[in-house]
Amino acid sequence: MKILVDAMGGDNAPAAIIEGVVAALNKNSEIELVLCGRQNEVEAELKKYTYDKSRVEIVDCPDVIDMNDIPTEAVRRKGTSMMTAYWMLKKQEELDAFVTAGSTGAAIAGGQLILGRIKGVKRPALCCMIPNVSGEEGKKTLLCDCGANAECKPIMLCQFAVLASAYASVAFGIKHPKVGLLNNGTEEHKGDPLHQETYKLLSSIDCINFIGNVEGRDTLIGDVDVVVCDGFSGNIAVKSIEGTAKMMLKVMKKQFTSSLSSKIGSLFLLGAIKRMRTELDFEKIGGAILLGLKKPVIKSHGSSKASAIEAAINDAYMAVKSNLVANVAGNLEKIDLDNLVKSEEE
Amino acid sequence: MKILVDAMGGDNAPAAIIEGVVAALNKNSEIELVLCGRQNEVEAELKKYTYDKSRVEIVDCPDVIDMNDIPTEAVRRKGTSMMTAYWMLKKQEELDAFVTAGSTGAAIAGGQLILGRIKGVKRPALCCMIPNVSGEEGKKTLLCDCGANAECKPIMLCQFAVLASAYASVAFGIKHPKVGLLNNGTEEHKGDPLHQETYKLLSSIDCINFIGNVEGRDTLIGDVDVVVCDGFSGNIAVKSIEGTAKMMLKVMKKQFTSSLSSKIGSLFLLGAIKRMRTELDFEKIGGAILLGLKKPVIKSHGSSKASAIEAAINDAYMAVKSNLVANVAGNLEKIDLDNLVKSEEE
Repeated sequence: MKILVDAMGGDNAPAAIIEGVVAALNKNSEIELVLCGRQNEVEAELKKYTYDKSRVEIVDCPDVIDMNDIPTEAVRRKGTSMMTAYWMLKKQEELDAFVTAGSTGAAIAGGQLILGRIKGVKRPALCCMIPNVSGEEGKKTLLCDCGANAECKPIMLCQFAVLASAYASVAFGIKHPKVGLLNNGTEEHKGDPLHQETYKLLSSIDCINFIGNVEGRDTLIGDVDVVVCDGFSGNIAVKSIEGTAKMMLKVMKKQFTSSLSSKIGSLFLLGAIKRMRTELDFEKIGGAILLGLKKPVIKSHGSSKASAIEAAINDAYMAVKSNLVANVAGNLEKIDLDNLVKSEEE
Repeated sequence: MKILVDAMGGDNAPAAIIEGVVAALNKNSEIELVLCGRQNEVEAELKKYTYDKSRVEIVDCPDVIDMNDIPTEAVRRKGTSMMTAYWMLKKQEELDAFVTAGSTGAAIAGGQLILGRIKGVKRPALCCMIPNVSGEEGKKTLLCDCGANAECKPIMLCQFAVLASAYASVAFGIKHPKVGLLNNGTEEHKGDPLHQETYKLLSSIDCINFIGNVEGRDTLIGDVDVVVCDGFSGNIAVKSIEGTAKMMLKVMKKQFTSSLSSKIGSLFLLGAIKRMRTELDFEKIGGAILLGLKKPVIKSHGSSKASAIEAAINDAYMAVKSNLVANVAGNLEKIDLDNLVKSEEE
């Protein structure tokens, strides 16, 4: 399996990207990686590590997309690591997926305009995993869209539900993932017209297991597998979760080192604190998959460290291995979206 | 000072309400409380405690508003504890404020339709306090609107900014509270048309210290005092924060009791964990003040325990003591909202 990696994307590129790349290579012998970036910088980082060189290829890209670049303009700029990767992904059949920690807006624009959407998909959506303590250890909720589309129509939210439901089946091995609509209350009439109409449409789609409206807390503590939302609300939710986690860890650290007694206690708890961080896995929260594109694209958090990049490469591997795109396309065909829209308009 | 309390509102009424009422009475000799509720039930609870009986009055209300009641209908139902309190608050000058843990929708409807708004206020807003670790210990951020108005216009968000800014001045003693607009990114052009227009309007209001767009995490870890948002986004934010906190405390508890070593460690940390809970103060997060009404109304979380009710009564006391409503009205007069709207429409 061949996965493209944007070696220059994100705040810690290329050092953290290459460290993650090497870790992924050394753990998974099935993957080959194609690194897009400034050849000399990438080579200088690679030199620091031991790995199977036969499974790495570098594609020299002189330019990098900045977080401040306007996405639709960035797409047209030639020679950037991200857009070079997208063009290769589109044109070369043997390339299976793409991982980037670069600009989210540019990654979405490149995915739409260069790689292209699965037939029938109106807009790709960003889908991220959130730890959820309602079930077995390791349970996660998919939140979709967590930021690609600030403005949505009901039909788009329905597509997000179908896309993310197919992903949940594949990623979690659940046959009928529970799909909830993120709203400001659980009652059917809740929300603005967008959410009220979406509720009606979702209720009429047979191929998903729609359980009704859910609230912000349900993503983390509710019995739900997929939480569907517009990209504006999704962004607010993800960043509120991230902020709360950071705040709590900061307060915990402060209190746990505030006295001799608590310092002693913390020593006994080193293992538990480490397991807690692993279980919560906040490094990965910023990472998301772009659903609805012709091949899997993983958008890692801009501040990704090596472990997040390694995890993103692993997510890409899992998506390819499980035939995610074919599964998603198959599910999309089961719903007659045009008909849904028509019945909605009548 | 005389404060009305809805003795029947919330999941744990009347027991938890009365426990909180007695705690507040015993700590603050300046307050007198008027309890609206079923007299026999309220008296039965009161009998369990020792307190200054001369500062408590019961108003017998046979009916209670249910969480499932439709707010606009609930307002018209006579004899409910919440609406009786609102009518008394409106008509009796010596009554200063109202605390309820009952239905949020009914509390907003009653506030608007019975008590009435401050002159010029288009819609009252729910404003809650979130712990923030960016500054000194005990720093909080006000999030407004956190759920009263699912659908907003730019002018409403501007009013929320003015209302919450005045409250922050009073509650935190800050002269020029930093006001941010909750958006899906910090750049000026971010968000849907509602947020783009609001950004422009907020930039033109002199009496608030507008610092631009903020993201979901800034409420908790950013250098900001007031975060303005539409009630839909605000509800998503607050409930995501609540869910994350609950999830993390659950994981922490599990890990901290998972082995003998961690159990020993936890014993040393009892004090630190208690301080952490106090600092984070999640019991109070659900509590909010309804801004824009003619007298202070505190809406406590439906699942409020006694400590949250006591805190809510204290919030009401502080709001009255600091002349919050007069301050808010004064600030509102400084901005020429009609003119703002006109210049916006041109």
